[in-house]
Amino acid sequence: MLTCQGVTEKRNERRRRSDGERTRAAILEAAARFATLEGIGGLTIGRLADYAGMSKSSLFSAFGSKEELQLATIEEANAIFDREVVAPALEIGTPLERLRALCEGFLAHVERYVFPGGCFFASTVAEIDTRPGVVRERVTSAVADWFGLLEQQIRSAQKDGQLDTGEDATQLAFEVHALLLLANAQFVISGGDPAPLDRARRGIEQRLDLAGAAPGVSRRRAASR
Amino acid sequence: MLTCQGVTEKRNERRRRSDGERTRAAILEAAARFATLEGIGGLTIGRLADYAGMSKSSLFSAFGSKEELQLATIEEANAIFDREVVAPALEIGTPLERLRALCEGFLAHVERYVFPGGCFFASTVAEIDTRPGVVRERVTSAVADWFGLLEQQIRSAQKDGQLDTGEDATQLAFEVHALLLLANAQFVISGGDPAPLDRARRGIEQRLDLAGAAPGVSRRRAASR
Repeated sequence: MLTCQGVTEKRNERRRRSDGERTRAAILEAAARFATLEGIGGLTIGRLADYAGMSKSSLFSAFGSKEELQLATIEEANAIFDREVVAPALEIGTPLERLRALCEGFLAHVERYVFPGGCFFASTVAEIDTRPGVVRERVTSAVADWFGLLEQQIRSAQKDGQLDTGEDATQLAFEVHALLLLANAQFVISGGDPAPLDRARRGIEQRLDLAGAAPGVSRRRAASR
Repeated sequence: MLTCQGVTEKRNERRRRSDGERTRAAILEAAARFATLEGIGGLTIGRLADYAGMSKSSLFSAFGSKEELQLATIEEANAIFDREVVAPALEIGTPLERLRALCEGFLAHVERYVFPGGCFFASTVAEIDTRPGVVRERVTSAVADWFGLLEQQIRSAQKDGQLDTGEDATQLAFEVHALLLLANAQFVISGGDPAPLDRARRGIEQRLDLAGAAPGVSRRRAASR
């Protein structure tokens, strides 16, 4: 049985832990933002300490090594992407609209600078594509998950009769993914020109139309421009 | 009038200069290859000396600064890309076939590892997209030239009646460029899987077909697979 003292200690412990967790998440969010500007290879404990205005020693005690910090940052970036892009789209009822919501969610997260250097994974994968190791594995597996998610919606939409069954789902996912990535790259390099985002929207809707999709909300919006 | 001595000196000077130029080109080619593996930011005189097996002092005397080396490397990469991809395509007579040859030339230069880390400019632009300066300017201007080249062939093909005049040339160039870039990225990250290159070929031919193009050689090849 807990004494009053015991209850207070438990509460403090809970508060401490959750404060600690919040701090850790805030540090990692800063780390993920930093990595889209300076590269995940540039993400060292020393440079993050400068960027986030923290002491090196507290970051060392939290992460221990550069690789540990990089991996934790990737997990945090994944959680942010999931919260901002994936989870809201997956709440939608039909696979074709889920597919559209994933695309629009991706473009919208670029447009509102969730990460200052554009999509975290696009930025990171280009950097570490020729450097084997656990960091590359984790990043490529996150990108593969995203690609699989697009493909899955396409296959479900085919089963539901929303897209032609004659379409190669991997090919269609490749084309959609390609448009999203170029939109991201051109948006970042141009310093925020929204035109490439609209080009991706138009290209995706046209491609879905070719695959037998009925017009979606975003297509009607693009057509009215 | 030149004496025999004078003629010999002139010849030696010419040979020296051309040896020097050849050496410089060989160093810069190594630098361009290195940059697609380790990043243009990682291209320092010290690291290039290790990679190319040269003395730091000789590289210092040839380039002086890291930025000078980076800019010279970009020019060399541009010259290689021009020689391997652009120039052969532009020899072709009709704009639609030139467009196809530019795309196929791009995919082929990725496939035969002209640069070990894939397209030099795709690799570099992703790295320096958030870092203003003369290196970023030079790289983005090379990418813009490529994009302009695709667009120009599309407009010429429209004038020649090979593509529908109702097509938005910039939009079509965007879609073609997107497919090429994702093919490059997936080829590199997969360690040389040719499937993404074929996906880009198929996507581009399908898109050109939608834009009213008569079937091309590469499309017939893709269809027979």
